[in-house]
Amino acid sequence: MPSVTVDPTGTVLTLATPAGPRRFHAVWLRDNAPDPETRAPGNGQKLIALRDIPADTRIAAAGMRGDGRVEVRFDPEEKTVAFDPAWLEEHAYDHPTPRARGWLPAGVETWDAGLAESVPCGDFAALQGGGAALRDWLGSLMRYGFAKVANAPAEPGALFKVVDLFGYVRETNYGRHFEVRTEVDPTNLAFTGLGLQAHTDNPYRDPVPTVQVLHCLESSAAGGENMVVDGFAAALRLRDENPEAFDLLADHCARFEYVGEEGVCLTARRPMIELAPDGELVGIRFNNRSCAALVDVPFDRMEAYYAAYRRLGEIIDDTAMEVTFRLAPGEAFVVDNTRVLHARKAYSGTGTRWLQGCYADKDALRSTHDAMVRAGRLEAAQ
Amino acid sequence: MPSVTVDPTGTVLTLATPAGPRRFHAVWLRDNAPDPETRAPGNGQKLIALRDIPADTRIAAAGMRGDGRVEVRFDPEEKTVAFDPAWLEEHAYDHPTPRARGWLPAGVETWDAGLAESVPCGDFAALQGGGAALRDWLGSLMRYGFAKVANAPAEPGALFKVVDLFGYVRETNYGRHFEVRTEVDPTNLAFTGLGLQAHTDNPYRDPVPTVQVLHCLESSAAGGENMVVDGFAAALRLRDENPEAFDLLADHCARFEYVGEEGVCLTARRPMIELAPDGELVGIRFNNRSCAALVDVPFDRMEAYYAAYRRLGEIIDDTAMEVTFRLAPGEAFVVDNTRVLHARKAYSGTGTRWLQGCYADKDALRSTHDAMVRAGRLEAAQ
Repeated sequence: MPSVTVDPTGTVLTLATPAGPRRFHAVWLRDNAPDPETRAPGNGQKLIALRDIPADTRIAAAGMRGDGRVEVRFDPEEKTVAFDPAWLEEHAYDHPTPRARGWLPAGVETWDAGLAESVPCGDFAALQGGGAALRDWLGSLMRYGFAKVANAPAEPGALFKVVDLFGYVRETNYGRHFEVRTEVDPTNLAFTGLGLQAHTDNPYRDPVPTVQVLHCLESSAAGGENMVVDGFAAALRLRDENPEAFDLLADHCARFEYVGEEGVCLTARRPMIELAPDGELVGIRFNNRSCAALVDVPFDRMEAYYAAYRRLGEIIDDTAMEVTFRLAPGEAFVVDNTRVLHARKAYSGTGTRWLQGCYADKDALRSTHDAMVRAGRLEAAQ
Repeated sequence: MPSVTVDPTGTVLTLATPAGPRRFHAVWLRDNAPDPETRAPGNGQKLIALRDIPADTRIAAAGMRGDGRVEVRFDPEEKTVAFDPAWLEEHAYDHPTPRARGWLPAGVETWDAGLAESVPCGDFAALQGGGAALRDWLGSLMRYGFAKVANAPAEPGALFKVVDLFGYVRETNYGRHFEVRTEVDPTNLAFTGLGLQAHTDNPYRDPVPTVQVLHCLESSAAGGENMVVDGFAAALRLRDENPEAFDLLADHCARFEYVGEEGVCLTARRPMIELAPDGELVGIRFNNRSCAALVDVPFDRMEAYYAAYRRLGEIIDDTAMEVTFRLAPGEAFVVDNTRVLHARKAYSGTGTRWLQGCYADKDALRSTHDAMVRAGRLEAAQ
């Protein structure tokens, strides 16, 4: 049975929990009060602003109610609010926080070539059916930043049906979708489709498209396999080898540019390794083709920066990091473009290769997944 | 006349310029070589990766050519490349870089209520005509994060024609656009349209929609004016008053959430004040309605964090910061949603207010502007 105490000034409430005491400030509690004047019961949106909460808010009294809730009376409002102690415990902020730079949240798992044995893959019809199949496939996408789709129609435009599973197309100057089509003719060396280094797409955009879908319509040429590399795994391998190198790529902005078409001049200034202010690894931008001149690295760190950039490229090129697969017509793959790099291997022989690609965003993907998980929990609780 | 010297190890080239010596590393020069094997002449995309440049690249010789170019021979490739000294000077990274946290790039100008005298505004027909009218209006949007459009059709869907001026709609679970429609009836207090605190939209998305367009179709109710506040100006005012408060909001993530509809569970963990790793102020997220419980601020900083958050809100609410205007039917405004907060004032009297809103992104907006500026420069140079 939890118990609560309040310090003499009414500033801090301490909740005794099995994991130890958890302290909460009066203003935090008041701001997070779950009563219907503070938060809309339907959508949880806050109905007041911080300006509506007195700056001298303090706890006048607190105690456990018969129903197990923590009751708190706030002065000077003379407002009484009941909190669920389980919610408080779940949202406690009274714990050690420093973590190594590059930490990842629970549920994100890095991978290397070993993932080839168990590439996340959903059957298109099953995914369209929704339910657990869709939820688990989206869960894999969030966990690994990458998943395949099998047995989708091998028709132009079918990639939009893949996007419809979780979100919305991000239209760009390339259109709502783009064609990746190659006629492989070995008599013309310039056209045999050389391999591309693994990269994230469009780092010259800010915001980058956070999801990419590639869908195969034709694939009769030998070679031309797709390959993916976990950029988070690569960045963390760099960190573990050489923390200073990791810091250099995280602490300085690179420049990316694309001015290929009339009316287009896309530029961005962002780091190759992007961290949240508390060190969470949140994004990777890596694309040799669209790198512009680096001008934001001080002179005395430029050589070390280049060495770090080179080493990150070597790690990305290490075959021990890559998962290679061949898309058959009607198959597609989806990547988190802020994390997973993709590439195409070189072709050999004759034939055609035709993919359609498009961009989308992670906000809707995560929302679709999380809403399914939440609905499942609410149902289970009833 | 510029001159160049090379250090004995071939690691550093020094260019004498009127502003003083500028040093460039061998690997940087090689990576930025403008020759057609390194960069595609058409679109400027890099044709090689860093892995194609030897790790022991050094400068074997360098000198000025008769045509004024800097010629550099790189070993071990034995490759000779000519650089434009003006390009080198423009991209020099050999200068002091530390700047105060919250610095803004050239061309971004903060503002307060004084901007009311000269709100950037474009005539819709003139903007559709392109050329200088469009270029300058987009330039104002990039400078101030905000601009109006006058004399657009007062028809549903006309907001898409505003987006067509510079980019693409970002579709979300709210659709390609959303309706902001209120019948003001003073006999029903709950429906008189209370004012909203200035906010950025959808901070619970990651990525947030970086541009918002609001277009007026009907406006017969008294009140309900629109108001905008420069979030960059507010953040920098906070910094100048109290650097620790600014740092608290920049160094810790807030949490934002929206779970209002079936199938929707949008969450994000990002700071209210977002800085690039070198301290550039790149984004503001401020929205009391969608703030979730703060759990990423350590216990011993939570009270100070709340004080900083409160003070930022007070600055945002200060009427000296706000530009207020009334949209007439056929008028629209566009905001950089990563910077400029917007709000609606309370209504009084009877009547209707009908706006349509939609989201778009800054990458295309900046690209459209920069391509026009670039084309103008190329033309002028011919």
